[in-house]
Amino acid sequence: MYNYMYNYKLTIAYDGTHYCGWQIQPNGVTIQQTIQEKISVILRCPVVLIGSGRTDAGVHARGQVAHFRAEQLIDLGKFLVSINALLPRDIRVLFVERADLSFHAQYSATGKIYHYHLYLDKVMDPFKRLYCWHLHHPVDVDLLMQAAKLFVGTHDFTSFSNEAHSGSASRDPIRTLQRLDVVREIGGIRLELEADGFLYKMVRNIVGVLTEVAGGKKCLDDIPRIFEAKDRRLAGKAVPPEGLFLMHVKYG
Amino acid sequence: MYNYMYNYKLTIAYDGTHYCGWQIQPNGVTIQQTIQEKISVILRCPVVLIGSGRTDAGVHARGQVAHFRAEQLIDLGKFLVSINALLPRDIRVLFVERADLSFHAQYSATGKIYHYHLYLDKVMDPFKRLYCWHLHHPVDVDLLMQAAKLFVGTHDFTSFSNEAHSGSASRDPIRTLQRLDVVREIGGIRLELEADGFLYKMVRNIVGVLTEVAGGKKCLDDIPRIFEAKDRRLAGKAVPPEGLFLMHVKYG
Repeated sequence: MYNYMYNYKLTIAYDGTHYCGWQIQPNGVTIQQTIQEKISVILRCPVVLIGSGRTDAGVHARGQVAHFRAEQLIDLGKFLVSINALLPRDIRVLFVERADLSFHAQYSATGKIYHYHLYLDKVMDPFKRLYCWHLHHPVDVDLLMQAAKLFVGTHDFTSFSNEAHSGSASRDPIRTLQRLDVVREIGGIRLELEADGFLYKMVRNIVGVLTEVAGGKKCLDDIPRIFEAKDRRLAGKAVPPEGLFLMHVKYG
Repeated sequence: MYNYMYNYKLTIAYDGTHYCGWQIQPNGVTIQQTIQEKISVILRCPVVLIGSGRTDAGVHARGQVAHFRAEQLIDLGKFLVSINALLPRDIRVLFVERADLSFHAQYSATGKIYHYHLYLDKVMDPFKRLYCWHLHHPVDVDLLMQAAKLFVGTHDFTSFSNEAHSGSASRDPIRTLQRLDVVREIGGIRLELEADGFLYKMVRNIVGVLTEVAGGKKCLDDIPRIFEAKDRRLAGKAVPPEGLFLMHVKYG
Protein backbone atom coordinates (compact mmCIF):
# COMPACT_ATOMS: atom_id res chain seq x y z
CA MET A 1 0.00 0.00 0.00
CA TYR A 2 1.53 3.28 -1.13
CA ASN A 3 1.11 6.45 0.80
CA TYR A 4 1.35 9.09 -1.90
CA MET A 5 2.33 12.51 -0.69
CA TYR A 6 2.42 14.44 -3.92
CA ASN A 7 0.32 14.87 -7.02
CA TYR A 8 1.69 16.24 -10.30
CA LYS A 9 -0.22 17.71 -13.21
CA LEU A 10 1.25 17.57 -16.72
CA THR A 11 0.15 19.51 -19.79
CA ILE A 12 1.10 17.56 -22.88
CA ALA A 13 1.25 18.11 -26.66
CA TYR A 14 1.61 15.25 -29.10
CA ASP A 15 1.51 14.40 -32.75
CA GLY A 16 -0.72 11.31 -32.65
CA THR A 17 0.20 10.09 -36.15
CA HIS A 18 2.43 7.23 -35.06
CA TYR A 19 0.54 6.12 -31.94
CA CYS A 20 -2.39 3.80 -31.23
CA GLY A 21 -4.04 6.61 -29.30
CA TRP A 22 -3.65 7.77 -25.71
CA GLN A 23 -4.82 4.79 -23.69
CA ILE A 24 -2.58 1.83 -22.83
CA GLN A 25 -3.55 -1.29 -24.76
CA PRO A 26 -1.99 -4.72 -25.29
CA ASN A 27 -1.15 -4.26 -29.00
CA GLY A 28 0.68 -1.17 -30.16
CA VAL A 29 2.46 1.78 -28.64
CA THR A 30 0.32 4.42 -26.94
CA ILE A 31 1.05 7.90 -25.67
CA GLN A 32 0.02 7.16 -22.07
CA GLN A 33 2.36 4.16 -21.95
CA THR A 34 5.27 6.05 -23.50
CA ILE A 35 5.08 8.93 -21.02
CA GLN A 36 4.33 6.70 -18.01
CA GLU A 37 7.43 4.59 -18.73
CA LYS A 38 9.69 7.65 -18.94
CA ILE A 39 8.34 9.08 -15.66
CA SER A 40 8.99 5.70 -14.00
CA VAL A 41 12.59 5.84 -15.27
CA ILE A 42 13.11 9.34 -13.84
CA LEU A 43 11.46 8.53 -10.47
CA ARG A 44 12.98 5.03 -10.35
CA CYS A 45 9.63 3.54 -9.35
CA PRO A 46 6.45 2.58 -11.16
CA VAL A 47 3.89 5.39 -11.60
CA VAL A 48 0.38 5.42 -13.00
CA LEU A 49 -0.39 8.28 -15.37
CA ILE A 50 -4.07 9.23 -15.67
CA GLY A 51 -5.18 11.38 -18.60
CA SER A 52 -8.21 13.68 -18.88
CA GLY A 53 -9.59 11.19 -21.37
CA ARG A 54 -8.53 9.04 -24.24
CA THR A 55 -7.72 10.28 -27.71
CA ASP A 56 -8.00 7.79 -30.58
CA ALA A 57 -5.23 6.59 -32.89
CA GLY A 58 -4.10 9.46 -35.13
CA VAL A 59 -5.74 12.18 -33.00
CA HIS A 60 -3.42 14.99 -31.84
CA ALA A 61 -3.22 17.12 -28.71
CA ARG A 62 -1.93 20.57 -27.89
CA GLY A 63 -3.31 20.59 -24.35
CA GLN A 64 -3.90 17.09 -23.02
CA VAL A 65 -3.72 17.01 -19.21
CA ALA A 66 -2.64 14.08 -17.06
CA HIS A 67 -1.69 13.49 -13.43
CA PHE A 68 0.41 11.06 -11.47
CA ARG A 69 0.94 10.60 -7.75
CA ALA A 70 4.29 9.92 -6.16
CA GLU A 71 6.03 9.75 -2.81
CA GLN A 72 8.82 12.05 -3.96
CA LEU A 73 9.02 15.81 -3.97
CA ILE A 74 10.21 16.54 -7.51
CA ASP A 75 12.32 19.46 -8.79
CA LEU A 76 9.85 20.58 -11.47
CA GLY A 77 12.37 22.42 -13.67
CA LYS A 78 14.73 19.46 -13.78
CA PHE A 79 11.84 17.05 -14.33
CA LEU A 80 10.64 19.00 -17.39
CA VAL A 81 14.10 18.89 -18.97
CA SER A 82 14.56 15.18 -18.16
CA ILE A 83 11.18 14.00 -19.37
CA ASN A 84 11.51 15.86 -22.69
CA ALA A 85 15.03 14.52 -23.15
CA LEU A 86 13.74 10.95 -22.71
CA LEU A 87 10.50 11.28 -24.72
CA PRO A 88 10.37 10.87 -28.49
CA ARG A 89 10.20 14.20 -30.32
CA ASP A 90 6.52 13.83 -31.26
CA ILE A 91 5.52 14.00 -27.58
CA ARG A 92 6.36 17.03 -25.42
CA VAL A 93 5.48 17.82 -21.84
CA LEU A 94 4.75 21.56 -22.00
CA PHE A 95 4.25 22.21 -18.28
CA VAL A 96 4.55 20.30 -15.04
CA GLU A 97 3.10 21.63 -11.79
CA ARG A 98 2.16 20.38 -8.34
CA ALA A 99 -1.53 19.83 -7.79
CA ASP A 100 -3.70 19.19 -4.77
CA LEU A 101 -3.85 15.49 -3.86
CA SER A 102 -7.55 15.56 -4.71
CA PHE A 103 -6.86 16.66 -8.31
CA HIS A 104 -7.78 14.03 -10.89
CA ALA A 105 -7.13 14.74 -14.57
CA GLN A 106 -10.33 13.02 -15.67
CA TYR A 107 -12.81 13.50 -12.80
CA SER A 108 -11.82 17.08 -11.98
CA ALA A 109 -12.23 18.25 -15.59
CA THR A 110 -15.09 20.70 -16.09
CA GLY A 111 -14.79 21.19 -19.83
CA LYS A 112 -12.77 20.59 -22.97
CA ILE A 113 -11.97 22.34 -26.21
CA TYR A 114 -11.40 20.41 -29.43
CA HIS A 115 -10.46 21.75 -32.87
CA TYR A 116 -11.16 19.94 -36.12
CA HIS A 117 -9.34 21.10 -39.29
CA LEU A 118 -10.98 20.69 -42.70
CA TYR A 119 -8.91 21.32 -45.82
CA LEU A 120 -11.06 22.50 -48.73
CA ASP A 121 -8.69 23.60 -51.53
CA LYS A 122 -8.32 21.28 -54.50
CA VAL A 123 -4.63 20.46 -53.97
CA MET A 124 -3.71 19.47 -50.41
CA ASP A 125 -0.90 21.30 -48.64
CA PRO A 126 1.66 18.48 -48.10
CA PHE A 127 2.60 19.97 -44.71
CA LYS A 128 -0.99 19.61 -43.49
CA ARG A 129 -1.58 16.07 -44.75
CA LEU A 130 -1.36 14.59 -41.24
CA TYR A 131 -3.22 17.44 -39.49
CA CYS A 132 -6.32 18.10 -41.62
CA TRP A 133 -9.01 16.11 -43.32
CA HIS A 134 -9.02 16.86 -47.05
CA LEU A 135 -12.59 17.13 -48.33
CA HIS A 136 -12.75 16.46 -52.06
CA HIS A 137 -16.36 17.54 -52.63
CA PRO A 138 -17.50 21.19 -52.69
CA VAL A 139 -18.51 22.57 -49.29
CA ASP A 140 -21.03 25.34 -48.60
CA VAL A 141 -19.37 27.05 -45.63
CA ASP A 142 -22.38 29.31 -44.92
CA LEU A 143 -24.62 26.26 -44.70
CA LEU A 144 -22.05 24.56 -42.47
CA MET A 145 -22.16 27.60 -40.14
CA GLN A 146 -25.97 27.41 -39.97
CA ALA A 147 -25.80 23.68 -39.22
CA ALA A 148 -23.18 24.29 -36.52
CA LYS A 149 -25.59 26.56 -34.60
CA LEU A 150 -28.09 23.68 -34.25
CA PHE A 151 -25.59 21.75 -32.11
CA VAL A 152 -24.94 24.50 -29.57
CA GLY A 153 -26.74 24.17 -26.26
CA THR A 154 -27.77 21.30 -23.97
CA HIS A 155 -28.78 18.15 -25.83
CA ASP A 156 -28.94 14.39 -25.54
CA PHE A 157 -25.99 13.49 -27.81
CA THR A 158 -26.72 9.73 -27.97
CA SER A 159 -27.00 9.86 -31.78
CA PHE A 160 -23.54 11.42 -31.98
CA SER A 161 -21.69 9.05 -29.69
CA ASN A 162 -20.10 5.64 -30.06
CA GLU A 163 -20.28 5.25 -26.29
CA ALA A 164 -21.56 1.67 -26.66
CA HIS A 165 -18.20 0.75 -28.24
CA SER A 166 -16.04 2.78 -25.90
CA GLY A 167 -15.43 -0.05 -23.46
CA SER A 168 -16.18 2.31 -20.58
CA ALA A 169 -19.28 2.36 -18.43
CA SER A 170 -22.18 4.09 -20.16
CA ARG A 171 -22.33 7.75 -19.25
CA ASP A 172 -24.98 10.41 -19.15
CA PRO A 173 -25.54 11.38 -22.81
CA ILE A 174 -26.69 14.91 -21.90
CA ARG A 175 -23.95 17.40 -22.70
CA THR A 176 -23.79 21.16 -23.11
CA LEU A 177 -21.96 22.39 -26.19
CA GLN A 178 -21.07 25.96 -25.27
CA ARG A 179 -19.80 26.88 -28.73
CA LEU A 180 -19.14 25.46 -32.17
CA ASP A 181 -17.30 28.19 -34.08
CA VAL A 182 -16.30 28.01 -37.72
CA VAL A 183 -13.03 29.85 -38.35
CA ARG A 184 -11.52 30.31 -41.79
CA GLU A 185 -7.84 29.43 -42.12
CA ILE A 186 -5.49 29.08 -45.11
CA GLY A 187 -6.87 26.44 -47.45
CA GLY A 188 -9.88 25.55 -45.34
CA ILE A 189 -11.71 25.96 -42.05
CA ARG A 190 -11.28 25.07 -38.40
CA LEU A 191 -14.20 23.98 -36.21
CA GLU A 192 -13.81 24.90 -32.55
CA LEU A 193 -15.97 22.90 -30.13
CA GLU A 194 -16.22 23.65 -26.43
CA ALA A 195 -18.35 21.58 -24.04
CA ASP A 196 -18.61 20.47 -20.42
CA GLY A 197 -17.62 17.05 -21.69
CA PHE A 198 -17.61 14.97 -24.86
CA LEU A 199 -18.90 11.43 -25.39
CA TYR A 200 -16.79 8.89 -27.25
CA LYS A 201 -16.25 10.00 -30.89
CA MET A 202 -18.73 12.84 -30.39
CA VAL A 203 -16.61 15.50 -32.13
CA ARG A 204 -15.90 13.33 -35.17
CA ASN A 205 -19.56 12.32 -35.45
CA ILE A 206 -20.77 15.93 -35.22
CA VAL A 207 -18.23 17.04 -37.85
CA GLY A 208 -19.39 14.12 -40.02
CA VAL A 209 -22.96 15.42 -40.04
CA LEU A 210 -21.80 19.03 -40.55
CA THR A 211 -19.80 18.10 -43.65
CA GLU A 212 -22.68 16.01 -45.00
CA VAL A 213 -25.00 19.00 -44.67
CA ALA A 214 -22.40 21.34 -46.19
CA GLY A 215 -21.90 18.89 -49.06
CA GLY A 216 -25.64 18.55 -49.77
CA LYS A 217 -25.98 14.94 -48.58
CA LYS A 218 -28.13 15.91 -45.59
CA CYS A 219 -30.27 19.00 -44.97
CA LEU A 220 -30.55 21.30 -41.95
CA ASP A 221 -33.87 19.75 -40.95
CA ASP A 222 -32.22 16.36 -40.57
CA ILE A 223 -30.23 17.55 -37.56
CA PRO A 224 -33.11 17.88 -35.04
CA ARG A 225 -34.45 14.57 -36.33
CA ILE A 226 -31.12 12.84 -35.70
CA PHE A 227 -30.98 14.28 -32.17
CA GLU A 228 -34.51 13.07 -31.47
CA ALA A 229 -33.98 9.54 -32.77
CA LYS A 230 -31.19 8.85 -30.24
CA ASP A 231 -29.80 6.38 -32.72
CA ARG A 232 -26.13 6.41 -33.63
CA ARG A 233 -26.80 4.90 -37.09
CA LEU A 234 -28.58 8.04 -38.33
CA ALA A 235 -25.63 10.37 -37.92
CA GLY A 236 -23.49 8.75 -40.61
CA LYS A 237 -19.75 8.22 -40.61
CA ALA A 238 -17.27 9.70 -38.16
CA VAL A 239 -14.66 11.86 -39.91
CA PRO A 240 -11.00 10.71 -39.92
CA PRO A 241 -8.85 11.21 -36.81
CA GLU A 242 -6.03 13.29 -38.34
CA GLY A 243 -8.02 16.56 -38.34
CA LEU A 244 -8.76 16.38 -34.60
CA PHE A 245 -6.83 18.20 -31.87
CA LEU A 246 -7.52 18.19 -28.12
CA MET A 247 -6.66 21.82 -27.40
CA HIS A 248 -7.51 22.47 -23.78
CA VAL A 249 -8.93 20.83 -20.65
CA LYS A 250 -10.66 23.11 -18.15
CA TYR A 251 -10.64 22.64 -14.37
CA GLY A 252 -12.40 24.30 -11.46
CA MET B 1 16.44 12.36 -81.49
CA TYR B 2 13.23 13.77 -80.07
CA ASN B 3 11.50 16.74 -81.55
CA TYR B 4 9.78 18.21 -78.52
CA MET B 5 6.84 20.40 -79.29
CA TYR B 6 5.73 21.38 -75.81
CA ASN B 7 7.27 22.58 -72.59
CA TYR B 8 5.53 22.31 -69.22
CA LYS B 9 6.25 24.21 -66.03
CA LEU B 10 5.36 22.69 -62.65
CA THR B 11 5.17 24.45 -59.28
CA ILE B 12 5.78 21.90 -56.54
CA ALA B 13 5.51 21.70 -52.75
CA TYR B 14 7.12 18.91 -50.75
CA ASP B 15 7.91 17.80 -47.25
CA GLY B 16 11.57 16.81 -47.67
CA THR B 17 11.77 14.79 -44.43
CA HIS B 18 11.73 11.36 -46.03
CA TYR B 19 13.77 12.11 -49.18
CA CYS B 20 17.44 12.25 -50.08
CA GLY B 21 16.90 15.72 -51.49
CA TRP B 22 15.69 16.88 -54.90
CA GLN B 23 18.37 15.59 -57.24
CA ILE B 24 18.41 12.03 -58.63
CA GLN B 25 21.19 9.94 -57.11
CA PRO B 26 22.11 6.27 -57.15
CA ASN B 27 21.35 5.58 -53.47
CA GLY B 28 18.06 6.68 -51.97
CA VAL B 29 14.75 8.06 -53.15
CA THR B 30 14.73 11.66 -54.35
CA ILE B 31 11.94 14.08 -55.17
CA GLN B 32 13.03 14.66 -58.77
CA GLN B 33 13.05 10.91 -59.43
CA THR B 34 9.66 10.35 -57.77
CA ILE B 35 7.91 13.05 -59.82
CA GLN B 36 9.73 12.21 -63.06
CA GLU B 37 8.63 8.57 -62.80
CA LYS B 38 5.00 9.50 -62.29
CA ILE B 39 5.00 11.91 -65.25
CA SER B 40 6.49 9.14 -67.40
CA VAL B 41 3.65 6.83 -66.31
CA ILE B 42 1.02 9.41 -67.27
CA LEU B 43 2.64 10.29 -70.61
CA ARG B 44 3.60 6.67 -71.33
CA CYS B 45 7.09 7.71 -72.35
CA PRO B 46 10.27 8.70 -70.52
CA VAL B 47 10.58 12.36 -69.56
CA VAL B 48 13.38 14.37 -67.99
CA LEU B 49 12.32 16.72 -65.21
CA ILE B 50 14.65 19.69 -64.60
CA GLY B 51 14.35 21.63 -61.33
CA SER B 52 15.30 25.24 -60.59
CA GLY B 53 18.07 23.81 -58.43
CA ARG B 54 18.69 21.09 -55.91
CA THR B 55 17.45 21.05 -52.35
CA ASP B 56 19.35 18.90 -49.86
CA ALA B 57 18.04 15.93 -47.89
CA GLY B 58 15.49 17.12 -45.33
CA VAL B 59 14.98 20.55 -46.96
CA HIS B 60 11.37 21.44 -47.82
CA ALA B 61 9.74 23.41 -50.63
CA ARG B 62 6.56 25.38 -51.01
CA GLY B 63 7.45 26.78 -54.43
CA GLN B 64 10.01 24.61 -56.23
CA VAL B 65 9.73 25.00 -60.01
CA ALA B 66 10.59 22.36 -62.62
CA HIS B 67 10.02 21.84 -66.33
CA PHE B 68 9.78 18.93 -68.72
CA ARG B 69 9.48 18.80 -72.49
CA ALA B 70 7.18 16.41 -74.33
CA GLU B 71 5.75 15.69 -77.75
CA GLN B 72 2.18 15.56 -76.43
CA LEU B 73 -0.28 18.36 -75.90
CA ILE B 74 -1.47 17.67 -72.35
CA ASP B 75 -4.86 18.44 -70.80
CA LEU B 76 -3.50 20.44 -67.85
CA GLY B 77 -6.50 19.99 -65.55
CA LYS B 78 -6.52 16.22 -65.96
CA PHE B 79 -2.73 16.08 -65.62
CA LEU B 80 -2.86 17.89 -62.26
CA VAL B 81 -5.43 15.45 -60.88
CA SER B 82 -3.52 12.41 -62.23
CA ILE B 83 -0.08 13.42 -61.02
CA ASN B 84 -1.32 14.17 -57.49
CA ALA B 85 -3.24 10.89 -57.41
CA LEU B 86 -0.03 9.01 -58.27
CA LEU B 87 2.40 10.97 -56.09
CA PRO B 88 2.95 10.20 -52.39
CA ARG B 89 1.09 12.61 -50.12
CA ASP B 90 4.26 14.46 -49.06
CA ILE B 91 4.77 15.76 -52.62
CA ARG B 92 2.12 17.87 -54.36
CA VAL B 93 2.14 19.56 -57.76
CA LEU B 94 0.41 22.87 -57.03
CA PHE B 95 0.22 24.21 -60.59
CA VAL B 96 1.00 23.01 -64.08
CA GLU B 97 1.15 25.38 -67.04
CA ARG B 98 2.48 25.49 -70.59
CA ALA B 99 5.68 27.45 -71.03
CA ASP B 100 7.63 28.75 -73.98
CA LEU B 101 9.99 26.11 -75.41
CA SER B 102 12.90 28.31 -74.36
CA PHE B 103 11.86 28.23 -70.69
CA HIS B 104 14.37 26.40 -68.46
CA ALA B 105 13.58 26.00 -64.76
CA GLN B 106 17.22 26.52 -63.75
CA TYR B 107 18.72 28.82 -66.40
CA SER B 108 15.70 31.10 -66.76
CA ALA B 109 15.47 31.73 -63.01
CA THR B 110 16.24 35.33 -62.02
CA GLY B 111 15.87 34.97 -58.27
CA LYS B 112 14.80 32.83 -55.35
CA ILE B 113 13.24 33.22 -51.93
CA TYR B 114 14.14 30.92 -49.04
CA HIS B 115 12.77 30.88 -45.52
CA TYR B 116 14.58 29.44 -42.50
CA HIS B 117 12.61 28.76 -39.30
CA LEU B 118 14.30 28.97 -35.91
CA TYR B 119 12.45 27.73 -32.83
CA LEU B 120 13.54 29.57 -29.69
CA ASP B 121 11.13 28.55 -26.89
CA LYS B 122 12.42 26.09 -24.30
CA VAL B 123 10.02 23.26 -25.13
CA MET B 124 9.73 22.44 -28.82
CA ASP B 125 6.31 22.38 -30.44
CA PRO B 126 6.02 18.69 -31.51
CA PHE B 127 4.20 19.72 -34.69
CA LYS B 128 7.18 21.84 -35.77
CA ARG B 129 9.89 19.29 -34.99
CA LEU B 130 10.45 18.51 -38.69
CA TYR B 131 10.07 22.11 -39.92
CA CYS B 132 12.20 24.24 -37.56
CA TRP B 133 15.63 24.12 -36.05
CA HIS B 134 15.36 24.18 -32.25
CA LEU B 135 18.04 26.41 -30.77
CA HIS B 136 18.78 25.48 -27.17
CA HIS B 137 20.96 28.45 -26.28
CA PRO B 138 19.60 31.97 -25.64
CA VAL B 139 19.39 34.16 -28.75
CA ASP B 140 19.60 37.95 -28.91
CA VAL B 141 17.10 38.66 -31.68
CA ASP B 142 18.02 42.37 -31.93
CA LEU B 143 21.66 41.44 -32.46
CA LEU B 144 20.60 38.86 -35.04
CA MET B 145 18.70 41.60 -36.89
CA GLN B 146 21.78 43.84 -36.92
CA ALA B 147 23.92 40.96 -38.19
CA ALA B 148 21.36 40.19 -40.91
CA LYS B 149 21.75 43.70 -42.35
CA LEU B 150 25.46 43.08 -42.98
CA PHE B 151 24.60 40.36 -45.50
CA VAL B 152 22.26 42.44 -47.64
CA GLY B 153 23.72 43.78 -50.90
CA THR B 154 26.18 42.52 -53.50
CA HIS B 155 29.03 40.43 -52.06
CA ASP B 156 31.45 37.68 -52.87
CA PHE B 157 29.81 34.82 -50.91
CA THR B 158 32.70 32.36 -51.23
CA SER B 159 33.04 32.08 -47.44
CA PHE B 160 29.37 31.12 -47.17
CA SER B 161 29.29 28.48 -49.88
CA ASN B 162 30.12 24.80 -50.10
CA GLU B 163 30.34 25.16 -53.86
CA ALA B 164 33.56 23.13 -53.94
CA HIS B 165 31.57 20.12 -52.66
CA SER B 166 28.50 20.67 -54.80
CA GLY B 167 29.64 18.46 -57.66
CA SER B 168 28.64 21.18 -60.12
CA ALA B 169 30.97 23.43 -62.10
CA SER B 170 32.24 26.30 -59.97
CA ARG B 171 30.06 29.35 -60.34
CA ASP B 172 30.47 33.06 -59.94
CA PRO B 173 30.52 33.63 -56.15
CA ILE B 174 29.18 37.20 -56.50
CA ARG B 175 25.54 37.32 -55.48
CA THR B 176 23.11 40.07 -54.57
CA LEU B 177 21.07 39.44 -51.45
CA GLN B 178 18.10 41.78 -51.88
CA ARG B 179 16.73 41.21 -48.40
CA LEU B 180 17.24 39.21 -45.22
CA ASP B 181 14.21 39.89 -43.06
CA VAL B 182 13.72 38.63 -39.53
CA VAL B 183 10.04 37.95 -38.80
CA ARG B 184 8.75 36.88 -35.40
CA GLU B 185 6.43 33.88 -35.40
CA ILE B 186 4.92 31.73 -32.62
CA GLY B 187 7.75 30.19 -30.62
CA GLY B 188 10.56 31.67 -32.68
CA ILE B 189 11.59 33.60 -35.76
CA ARG B 190 11.61 33.16 -39.51
CA LEU B 191 14.47 34.43 -41.69
CA GLU B 192 13.42 35.43 -45.20
CA LEU B 193 16.24 35.56 -47.76
CA GLU B 194 15.79 36.83 -51.32
CA ALA B 195 18.62 36.89 -53.86
CA ASP B 196 19.32 36.71 -57.58
CA GLY B 197 20.75 33.27 -56.84
CA PHE B 198 22.18 31.21 -54.02
CA LEU B 199 25.39 29.22 -53.94
CA TYR B 200 25.40 25.67 -52.58
CA LYS B 201 24.46 25.66 -48.85
CA MET B 202 24.64 29.47 -48.82
CA VAL B 203 21.42 29.97 -46.81
CA ARG B 204 22.35 27.42 -44.16
CA ASN B 205 25.86 28.85 -43.85
CA ILE B 206 24.57 32.42 -43.49
CA VAL B 207 22.02 31.33 -40.86
CA GLY B 208 24.84 29.48 -39.08
CA VAL B 209 26.83 32.70 -38.69
CA LEU B 210 23.72 34.69 -37.74
CA THR B 211 22.89 32.28 -34.91
CA GLU B 212 26.50 32.27 -33.71
CA VAL B 213 26.45 36.07 -33.50
CA ALA B 214 23.03 36.03 -31.81
CA GLY B 215 24.30 33.43 -29.34
CA GLY B 216 27.49 35.36 -28.51
CA LYS B 217 29.93 32.98 -30.17
CA LYS B 218 30.85 35.49 -32.88
CA CYS B 219 30.59 39.29 -32.95
CA LEU B 220 29.24 41.67 -35.58
CA ASP B 221 32.77 42.68 -36.64
CA ASP B 222 33.53 39.09 -37.56
CA ILE B 223 31.10 39.20 -40.47
CA PRO B 224 33.01 41.59 -42.79
CA ARG B 225 36.19 39.68 -41.90
CA ILE B 226 34.63 36.38 -42.93
CA PHE B 227 33.44 37.91 -46.22
CA GLU B 228 36.93 39.26 -46.92
CA ALA B 229 38.74 36.02 -46.18
CA LYS B 230 36.87 34.12 -48.90
CA ASP B 231 37.42 30.98 -46.85
CA ARG B 232 34.57 28.61 -46.14
CA ARG B 233 36.21 27.36 -42.91
CA LEU B 234 35.71 30.72 -41.17
CA ALA B 235 31.92 30.74 -41.39
CA GLY B 236 31.38 27.82 -39.06
CA LYS B 237 28.78 25.08 -39.28
CA ALA B 238 25.81 25.03 -41.63
CA VAL B 239 22.52 24.83 -39.74
CA PRO B 240 20.37 21.67 -40.06
CA PRO B 241 18.20 21.17 -43.18
CA GLU B 242 14.79 20.80 -41.52
CA GLY B 243 14.32 24.55 -40.95
CA LEU B 244 14.84 25.43 -44.63
CA PHE B 245 12.05 26.03 -47.17
CA LEU B 246 12.42 26.98 -50.85
CA MET B 247 9.47 29.36 -51.08
CA HIS B 248 9.56 30.91 -54.54
CA VAL B 249 11.53 30.96 -57.78
CA LYS B 250 11.36 34.13 -59.85
CA TYR B 251 11.45 34.30 -63.66
CA GLY B 252 11.61 37.10 -66.21
